Amino acid sequence: MATAAIVIIGNEILTGKFVDENSPYLILRLRELGVELQRIAVIADDHDAIAGEVRRSSDAYDLVFTTGGVGPTHDDITMESIAQGFEVPLVERPELAELLNTKLKSRVNEAALRMAMVPEGSEFWWDGGLLFPLVVKENVHILPGVPSILKLKFEAVAERFRQAPSIHSARVVTREREIGIAARLEEALSRFDVEIGSYPRYDEGPMHVIITIEGRDAAQVQAAAHWLDDCLEPLDVL
Amino acid sequence: MATAAIVIIGNEILTGKFVDENSPYLILRLRELGVELQRIAVIADDHDAIAGEVRRSSDAYDLVFTTGGVGPTHDDITMESIAQGFEVPLVERPELAELLNTKLKSRVNEAALRMAMVPEGSEFWWDGGLLFPLVVKENVHILPGVPSILKLKFEAVAERFRQAPSIHSARVVTREREIGIAARLEEALSRFDVEIGSYPRYDEGPMHVIITIEGRDAAQVQAAAHWLDDCLEPLDVL
Repeated sequence: MATAAIVIIGNEILTGKFVDENSPYLILRLRELGVELQRIAVIADDHDAIAGEVRRSSDAYDLVFTTGGVGPTHDDITMESIAQGFEVPLVERPELAELLNTKLKSRVNEAALRMAMVPEGSEFWWDGGLLFPLVVKENVHILPGVPSILKLKFEAVAERFRQAPSIHSARVVTREREIGIAARLEEALSRFDVEIGSYPRYDEGPMHVIITIEGRDAAQVQAAAHWLDDCLEPLDVL
Repeated sequence: MATAAIVIIGNEILTGKFVDENSPYLILRLRELGVELQRIAVIADDHDAIAGEVRRSSDAYDLVFTTGGVGPTHDDITMESIAQGFEVPLVERPELAELLNTKLKSRVNEAALRMAMVPEGSEFWWDGGLLFPLVVKENVHILPGVPSILKLKFEAVAERFRQAPSIHSARVVTREREIGIAARLEEALSRFDVEIGSYPRYDEGPMHVIITIEGRDAAQVQAAAHWLDDCLEPLDVL
């Protein structure tokens, strides 16, 4: 199963100017594709922060997705920072410069041509008729920060990431408190080949605990859910 | 000005079972308090991941806030992992064990008493009449993951973090494209003592670019906003 990390390059998120719409979207889509997301980092628009985070994530996970900082303005430093992280130069790629010249005609300027500069050795993915390709350096997929464009690019290449088989999950809800059920959760873990999470909730109706059960074997997940359902007191909502 | 990092300990976020409500809340509150948030990491419920992230953040930033993993069940491993990160033992603190015995009476059990175990050398903050204290190890503030309880605890201690003076900000919106305005943004940066961000938007009405201006000097921020307002074409929405 492929593991993944997301690196959100975003002063605008950290300073509360914009809400991060990209993480929730990528979390759900990676889940649907069977990719195991293990880390999200939201970092500042800073060369060393980006270079360090991207390189460490590239070494530790199968897939890395960065978002943001790929436009033509002074605050768009993702490409040069990823080049720094991989210790390669930032190079102008003639096919991208030509594309920008063709698209923008007389409006082409120095700022626009910054978008033809990528880390040396980058691949271009043109899947699904993308007008401007997805830039991929090693296992790092460099996505834009604008949510609508990010979705367009991710959907164009998404099927490349699909894993099989997927993860099965179930939920059990109880009105018992966590301290009372901790021992039974431990027992369920020893009886079944599943992972179990326990999440108390106090602010949506009466106090309750949501128990999540996950695993690769659907029968084990079902069996664990039934076993817990039988031995935990249900949340009776009249 | 104090810098900060948030460490969200959350399999449930990475796997899409729950949406992260704690980051958006902490982003806004830290902003209001004048704290400069420089990093958010969402990591799995894994000893090494937690220990490493917390220790690196503790070394690099003034304030660290962790969320999640502090309850009585098997998946609550934050305290032991933070102890590991600081290379100190996890110890039972008698004042917490006594509190749990008093509160829970006959319901006290092994699971509940796990909540009396904290990294050696932790401080307890009882501000605002907290029934169970906020546990603070060095500069790491250990918050729960349940959003309603996290807010309760953070609000009790929030004023301890307030910085002065705060940051001033302004926005200018233009219907021009980023490639056309990049040079003028660079000029504004050289004229005024401010930071400038540039965020194109395509999916809310006609295409436009939101320019954000920030700085410690209110007059400089205002002057930069006026200068940009004068030289950028406005977004005319009839």
